[in-house]
Amino acid sequence: MSPDAGFSAVIPAGGIGSRLWPLSTSARPKFLLDLLGTGSTLLQDTYARVAPLADRVVVVTGAVHATEVRSQLPGLGEEGLIAEPSPRDSMPAIALAAAVVEERHGPHVMGSFSADHVIRKPEAFAEAIQVARISAESGSIAVIGIEPRGPATGFGYIKAGAAVDDSDGLFRVEAFTEKPGAREARAMIDAGSHFWNAGMYMARTDVLLSALARFHPDLERGVRELAAAWDGPGRVEAQERIWPGLTRIAIDHAIAEPVAAEGGVTVVPADLDWNDIGDFAVLASLVEPDSDGIRRIHRKARVAAIDASGSMMVGGDRPVVIIGVDDVTVVDCPEAILVLDRAAAQKVKQAKEEMTQG
Amino acid sequence: MSPDAGFSAVIPAGGIGSRLWPLSTSARPKFLLDLLGTGSTLLQDTYARVAPLADRVVVVTGAVHATEVRSQLPGLGEEGLIAEPSPRDSMPAIALAAAVVEERHGPHVMGSFSADHVIRKPEAFAEAIQVARISAESGSIAVIGIEPRGPATGFGYIKAGAAVDDSDGLFRVEAFTEKPGAREARAMIDAGSHFWNAGMYMARTDVLLSALARFHPDLERGVRELAAAWDGPGRVEAQERIWPGLTRIAIDHAIAEPVAAEGGVTVVPADLDWNDIGDFAVLASLVEPDSDGIRRIHRKARVAAIDASGSMMVGGDRPVVIIGVDDVTVVDCPEAILVLDRAAAQKVKQAKEEMTQG
Repeated sequence: MSPDAGFSAVIPAGGIGSRLWPLSTSARPKFLLDLLGTGSTLLQDTYARVAPLADRVVVVTGAVHATEVRSQLPGLGEEGLIAEPSPRDSMPAIALAAAVVEERHGPHVMGSFSADHVIRKPEAFAEAIQVARISAESGSIAVIGIEPRGPATGFGYIKAGAAVDDSDGLFRVEAFTEKPGAREARAMIDAGSHFWNAGMYMARTDVLLSALARFHPDLERGVRELAAAWDGPGRVEAQERIWPGLTRIAIDHAIAEPVAAEGGVTVVPADLDWNDIGDFAVLASLVEPDSDGIRRIHRKARVAAIDASGSMMVGGDRPVVIIGVDDVTVVDCPEAILVLDRAAAQKVKQAKEEMTQG
Repeated sequence: MSPDAGFSAVIPAGGIGSRLWPLSTSARPKFLLDLLGTGSTLLQDTYARVAPLADRVVVVTGAVHATEVRSQLPGLGEEGLIAEPSPRDSMPAIALAAAVVEERHGPHVMGSFSADHVIRKPEAFAEAIQVARISAESGSIAVIGIEPRGPATGFGYIKAGAAVDDSDGLFRVEAFTEKPGAREARAMIDAGSHFWNAGMYMARTDVLLSALARFHPDLERGVRELAAAWDGPGRVEAQERIWPGLTRIAIDHAIAEPVAAEGGVTVVPADLDWNDIGDFAVLASLVEPDSDGIRRIHRKARVAAIDASGSMMVGGDRPVVIIGVDDVTVVDCPEAILVLDRAAAQKVKQAKEEMTQG
């Protein structure tokens, strides 16, 4: 540990948000969007939330998005952006960030916070981070456990075990569960002590990398070598040589699950009013309707609903009229128009795949 | 009667088709559209249907549409288009046409056929016109009676009385009924001998104009004076002086009803597979779905329907995806996008009024 190195917040900014197509696309992914129409993007909101808590922020994103990320976050210094040559899932991205910040500042605590999540209780977030940070400093991998609002099947779950001695609101993780079926989700909610896993991990860089060295030694060696070259003239050569060969794996499988099995992961349950806005139905639930009952996001032109309740309009600069169709979302984007029943919001990914294939 | 003058077919080309908004607009009304996506417009179809039966065709349309009408009907001679300075309902338009063609050719039989109707049995149409023409030559006003397909409330009805002696398929008209309520429509269908009124009237110009002289003498005088000046240097002056003062009235009320009350109107019942495509539900019923079940009209771009049956797409050059909404019509036009449940097709007019007001 380098006591003066403080706390690095890493923001993995990846993922397209396929169920938000055509609003979200590979060229214009979810984290770059002002999805709630508040005037700031999800990435900007994430940065604003973590920057006051951290000594530095590092955004890890695809090379194609680097310019836009810098444009959205003008305060991000030269060292604040790590551009991945290509997406290789969350473990290589986070491990590279860990190795780079450790190279720069020595071993210290880092936390990983997705660029496209919504947290509407920032104070509770700050408190949870404080608890998790102390646990991370002591050598654990700490994860934030989101208080579940119901038996959702779209998230993985964290099973909390015994409370950690002398701690306030910190528990040993018994197990991680992948996205469950409806019955399994129901059983976990009924059992209690289960939390949604939003991928918010905190750990010392040396703890994280040594766990990686045990479970995925090639990956650890790769990111260490890359990090050593990162701030020098050899970065491009090292990227081209090393990055394409790194194992594609999520942090949950790569280290969180095996370390939890050893008792090395703690969970901080937190009620953050968290959301990942996975689809248009979730988006609708987060946006207040206007006085005419219509939810509007990025809407320049007029919209009218006749004999139609629960309408949501996303985007568009042409007038839209909805007649006789309840609970419909109309997305008017340059790439496509989507007409979606709210209950079918999960099927947008399939539509996107069909429409962008050929 | 001028025996050599033959038969003039008049095509009143007016009406916006408000329930087909935003496909049909005041600048781009229904009759100028290839509404069925067949490659020809309703006006062109009407012209093609009547021209072989007539000695000449005269289109009466608004001055703003004159250029487009001539462009769509290159065979229309100089005398084949009468441009109304402003819309004044059907009687002034048809009476002016009658007076102009009588001025040019002497008294003879003319028939009036709306520019925006669909007739899918053209042979039956030709036969009915032949019967109506003989009745018109003998001094009656003859009207085509459309065999009703059900108790529609969107059309006026013609009640047929006794058969005309020595005729085949010709009846005296007992009465005209305005658009009925549902119960009244049902009663007429059950009673039989009731036909839909599609406004297809045939009469000698002198018979029509003398009836007009009896019931609306100012209107008759006005169109006579206009017609006398029409083909000379005084047309514009006469138009500006006379046209704005002419009574706005439909031909049904102006002469068909009062002459029928005197026994002077005959009806030729005909099964023409006639339609006026009053709204998008009617349009859907006339268009065959593609192999994927989607009806497409003027569609350049891809459209996909997922968990959605009975979709119809009208217009548009962007991909459209419909998910989880049955029987929806999506109209993608430069002016607006419409998302419409088929059962609510009648409400489009209201939407158009709301959206084009302010």
